[in-house]
Amino acid sequence: MANAKRIQKDLETLRDISAGSGEGTTRLSYTPAYRKGVEYLKEQMRAFGLVPHEDGVGNLYGDLTGQNPDAPKIISGSHLDTVHCSGYFDGQAGIICALEAARMLKESGEPLNSTFQVMATIMEEGARFPSLGGSRFAIGEHTEETMENTFDMDGVKLGDAIREYGLSGNLEETRRRPEDAKAFLELHMEQGLKLDQTGTDLGIVETIYGSRWFILTCHGATSHPSTPMDIRKDTALAAYKLITNIADTVARDYAGKATVTSGRMQLYPNDINAIPSRSQFSIDFRSGKLEHLDALEALMREQVRLIEKAYRVRFDIALHSAAPPTDNNPVLSKMLEDSAEELGYSHMRMDSGAGHDAMIFAKIWNIAMLFVPSRDGYTHCRQEWTDYENLAKGADVLYRAIRKIDKL
Amino acid sequence: MANAKRIQKDLETLRDISAGSGEGTTRLSYTPAYRKGVEYLKEQMRAFGLVPHEDGVGNLYGDLTGQNPDAPKIISGSHLDTVHCSGYFDGQAGIICALEAARMLKESGEPLNSTFQVMATIMEEGARFPSLGGSRFAIGEHTEETMENTFDMDGVKLGDAIREYGLSGNLEETRRRPEDAKAFLELHMEQGLKLDQTGTDLGIVETIYGSRWFILTCHGATSHPSTPMDIRKDTALAAYKLITNIADTVARDYAGKATVTSGRMQLYPNDINAIPSRSQFSIDFRSGKLEHLDALEALMREQVRLIEKAYRVRFDIALHSAAPPTDNNPVLSKMLEDSAEELGYSHMRMDSGAGHDAMIFAKIWNIAMLFVPSRDGYTHCRQEWTDYENLAKGADVLYRAIRKIDKL
Repeated sequence: MANAKRIQKDLETLRDISAGSGEGTTRLSYTPAYRKGVEYLKEQMRAFGLVPHEDGVGNLYGDLTGQNPDAPKIISGSHLDTVHCSGYFDGQAGIICALEAARMLKESGEPLNSTFQVMATIMEEGARFPSLGGSRFAIGEHTEETMENTFDMDGVKLGDAIREYGLSGNLEETRRRPEDAKAFLELHMEQGLKLDQTGTDLGIVETIYGSRWFILTCHGATSHPSTPMDIRKDTALAAYKLITNIADTVARDYAGKATVTSGRMQLYPNDINAIPSRSQFSIDFRSGKLEHLDALEALMREQVRLIEKAYRVRFDIALHSAAPPTDNNPVLSKMLEDSAEELGYSHMRMDSGAGHDAMIFAKIWNIAMLFVPSRDGYTHCRQEWTDYENLAKGADVLYRAIRKIDKL
Repeated sequence: MANAKRIQKDLETLRDISAGSGEGTTRLSYTPAYRKGVEYLKEQMRAFGLVPHEDGVGNLYGDLTGQNPDAPKIISGSHLDTVHCSGYFDGQAGIICALEAARMLKESGEPLNSTFQVMATIMEEGARFPSLGGSRFAIGEHTEETMENTFDMDGVKLGDAIREYGLSGNLEETRRRPEDAKAFLELHMEQGLKLDQTGTDLGIVETIYGSRWFILTCHGATSHPSTPMDIRKDTALAAYKLITNIADTVARDYAGKATVTSGRMQLYPNDINAIPSRSQFSIDFRSGKLEHLDALEALMREQVRLIEKAYRVRFDIALHSAAPPTDNNPVLSKMLEDSAEELGYSHMRMDSGAGHDAMIFAKIWNIAMLFVPSRDGYTHCRQEWTDYENLAKGADVLYRAIRKIDKL
């Protein structure tokens, strides 16, 4: 059975070597803190006979070579990067549970037919570059052009960040093919309350919600705060009205069906004493149904038109990132479910409100996701928590499902 | 008569030596750009026999010594600091027109009885430290404690900024007394549309609006954007709702009587992919009537209570700066008005929606303000404009009024 202590040690070590701001775990892609995380994982992989290697953009693999190295692989993992001031479970737990499954395979003395590959993806969070970047490069959706035309908020080009971090940026080394793998399994925190509130050990994901992210820029004019309200071109107020109008509608008409979040806001000049001439902000829609995402985008565009008139401003709307809702593979999901059942762990079917690398890999591979509880629903923050014993149950299910998949 | 070319040269030079961001004039207090502005003014003062000196916190004076140096002085000027990316008239025009009046006095060959003092105040804008700082130190409203307990957004202590800039920080050298002056005259841009829209040369100010500035901090919790809307503690959304609710009420119920502006917003962590756990922002109320300021503060506090409940967050409210509405001295205002009339310049009575150093000096001296037009109402931005010929008219009126005051 999986060793909860070993899982705990790995997660706490990753936490302790992350960028120290005193406010949680920060491991942005292509930073010294990220490098430290990768080196730690490589050590742990080598200690149990896995062969680590990084692709051209920084996705990390650890191969536990099977008896038939040419057979399609079984892959499991999640992302190593975090948002700013995060907890130390989101993403990381999925890598460490896959690593634990690899250790159990090694310790069992019964090698698999297929090679089992532990994967740690890079750039999954949108904290620095657009989200799901590592997996998009891996399936060939991102290209050389992406590297040249993508910038972080400090104006650093993605291609430069990759090369300065010490990687080749070679996309041939990075590219995965449909024939490479028979399954991709991702264990992740639920990022919701269903498992926690019902006291259920594990969630078997059916649909991963799609997302649509926009960056809006509002252009107006600054002026002194004594300027009458009815002639201002106040881009902060216009942005706030747009965001609250959309949020009110989503809360009222889309409860349980979709969410909207505006997590980023930058005003110019951002002085107390000046009406903001420019505002730039994000709008992030999520839903399990493509038609809801379409309807919400239409709602946003309609609101933009109304608010442009009412506030004498102009908006630019740029699509930043988009992913459609994705169904998990029912055969793989059933194997996860059967494994949990056989082990006597409680489980339930559910959807994923958040997007994950698995939904990108679903374009070339069969995928399935296993959720562990988020205590009180917290994620992307220091309060983030899953019991180590519950993670061990997740690793047990991964191990058992991997054995089943190997026999497919 | 005043020389418009000389005024133009001074203003354009000050513009050209300000901090170069390519987006207008930026001259924050206690910066190298501010030092360059002061040194330029000192040169111009010396060229016409004025004796320049800086007080302990950076207010600059230039004395044109009168026949009776012990008589109370006549002072005119405005502030030299700007907001970020400003134009080059706000504040600066009032210094340069006072300097032009001094040059006219010198060139007339007929010295005043009183010493005429050109003044350039520091820290009037709230762009770095709380607004009206130079004048508040000059009248003794700010103290040693203020220097130790005031910080800019980068955490630099005001006292350290003053000393690192090369000033003593000595408040005895800085302190002005009621008996020091018989009048303080401030020429400033209108920062509104009345003069521009009516084609009037000059405004004689009756009341300077009061202001009340708050910094609010909203505390909630971050979480992933897939978190259901009805359990979030989204501090951005709470802030936006508060600000738009207040702005809607002010626009509807206080048109022509008061304004509200929220010019600054900072979210944490400010990621697309995370609900903001903390927001910090400014709320700036302005009105000519104390009872309106009181009512608006009460409205804000009531809305805060409602929004705390509705959005599951908590607000801290800190008063950042406050000034009551201030009436100008009617005798001095009449002298400005008579001077304009005698010169054949069009003029009108009006209120000032913006706060000015004059309202701080009103606590110890008789003050009056003269407005020049703001083209299209723009201020605190690159579009800011007043015709140089109109500034020359302002300098003419200052000159004539100073002669009248000298005979008082």
